[in-house]
Amino acid sequence: MVEDASPALREVMAGLAPYAGQAHVIGLTGAPGVGKSTSTSALVSLMRARDRRVGVLAVDPSSPFSGGALLGDRVRMEEHALDPEVFIRSMATRGHLGGLSWATPQALRVLDAAGCDVVLVETVGVGQSEVEVAAMADTTLVLLAPGMGDGIQAAKAGILEIGDVYVINKADREGADQLRRELRSMLALGTGADEGWTPPIVRTVASRGEGLDDLAQAIEDHRTWLGDHDQLRVRRLRRAREEIEAIALTSLRERWRDVHDHTDLDELAGAVVAGETDPYTAADRLLAAVGG
Amino acid sequence: MVEDASPALREVMAGLAPYAGQAHVIGLTGAPGVGKSTSTSALVSLMRARDRRVGVLAVDPSSPFSGGALLGDRVRMEEHALDPEVFIRSMATRGHLGGLSWATPQALRVLDAAGCDVVLVETVGVGQSEVEVAAMADTTLVLLAPGMGDGIQAAKAGILEIGDVYVINKADREGADQLRRELRSMLALGTGADEGWTPPIVRTVASRGEGLDDLAQAIEDHRTWLGDHDQLRVRRLRRAREEIEAIALTSLRERWRDVHDHTDLDELAGAVVAGETDPYTAADRLLAAVGG
Repeated sequence: MVEDASPALREVMAGLAPYAGQAHVIGLTGAPGVGKSTSTSALVSLMRARDRRVGVLAVDPSSPFSGGALLGDRVRMEEHALDPEVFIRSMATRGHLGGLSWATPQALRVLDAAGCDVVLVETVGVGQSEVEVAAMADTTLVLLAPGMGDGIQAAKAGILEIGDVYVINKADREGADQLRRELRSMLALGTGADEGWTPPIVRTVASRGEGLDDLAQAIEDHRTWLGDHDQLRVRRLRRAREEIEAIALTSLRERWRDVHDHTDLDELAGAVVAGETDPYTAADRLLAAVGG
Repeated sequence: MVEDASPALREVMAGLAPYAGQAHVIGLTGAPGVGKSTSTSALVSLMRARDRRVGVLAVDPSSPFSGGALLGDRVRMEEHALDPEVFIRSMATRGHLGGLSWATPQALRVLDAAGCDVVLVETVGVGQSEVEVAAMADTTLVLLAPGMGDGIQAAKAGILEIGDVYVINKADREGADQLRRELRSMLALGTGADEGWTPPIVRTVASRGEGLDDLAQAIEDHRTWLGDHDQLRVRRLRRAREEIEAIALTSLRERWRDVHDHTDLDELAGAVVAGETDPYTAADRLLAAVGG
């Protein structure tokens, strides 16, 4: 229903409201090829070994294939497919009104209210939407791998502000030590760290299960830090603000796109293209037209 | 003024309105490391040889360093720095209200009204924001390079729907032929192509200037196709719609974030976190509070 933006969603969300707020939301991001799906799958195994109920949202903002997940990911997650305490969902929400920022927090809310102790949100790519998704997580893991581009490229990819824990996966490969050194010095330059929390750098070889206990410990440490410093509440307030805003904005866009049968916005766009008016004046008129 | 969201921007944009609409806007995107900056620089040289005035917007949604561009890019663009017919600007707009979708079309509008014949918009990364930026271009170039991850990874990066022209850069490297084959078969599966336009695949070695005439020809062909099929108007209407919407939404967000001193949204977020209300009801209340 979230993916289809079902009209009945409103009623469902009202019913779920009292049950949400228990899950630890862990975001997992990084460039293509660093091993996100393998790491997610390994983390699920780890959480299941600790008897946690686990939700996985694999968020792919731009997959050209319907369903979002490609065969490789499905194969990697197959070992969990029959476990009734694991719920896995791939979402491809590009093109939807409001897109990721609309659907992801609501999907999180559903998994949370369904009793998941942990929800892993795996995002593909390195763009703005990943930063938005990271903003929804309690704990954000940023994955890197040797040989996937140097430190400068990692900085360009903009992931050095958002990590609570950095993971160098494929750490048995050449270049892992250098990547770690570069990452450490770049993190020292950055402004991303929360005051009082120094993001640890964990080395893993997810495909062989190496380093995962260290990773689980780092995640647990961050969860404890969040609780001890009132940061869990801060992050959840932020998530709720984003969620409310996304729903409100989508509702407005629907009003001026659909209810008015495209007329207002299309006419205004035509006037801007013709140079008859400027976009600010057009925006004022649009808001006036929908009562904003 | 665009980058600072200056209050005087409204007046400036009103003054520029009659002068925009002439530039050919070329988007250039691809994963980190495929050679976007080198290709942009080479394209600038090519356009200058044809006596075109050129604007370059290097859009980096998430650079942790202020100013957006890293040293490497600056060095690569230095050869054009003293040319008065070339205007180069790096924008790092993450965190800004409305972000890229707000600032980029307005910066484009300024360069367009300033008489640039061509504006190149170079985006870093492979996420949602790049897709949004691509939606602003008349012609979108998608760069790939051998050895930067296989075809499946390219598909995951979601760039196979947005290209009008595909560029295999570093085409002298091993794997270029295979990448071309994979790309061709994936494009055949995809849904991205406009009816009547088959995206060409051009091979370049931008650092040595190889293949750039072919690339210029492919860009020119697409520009001609746009004009012949009324697609230029369609794309510019789309860009104007996005621009108006982004300004209108930003204006609304400012109202409920700033004018109300955070009260409405923060209170509602608190109620959602506490499970006292659901995000849909909260969104309704938020819109009612600002008269929407």
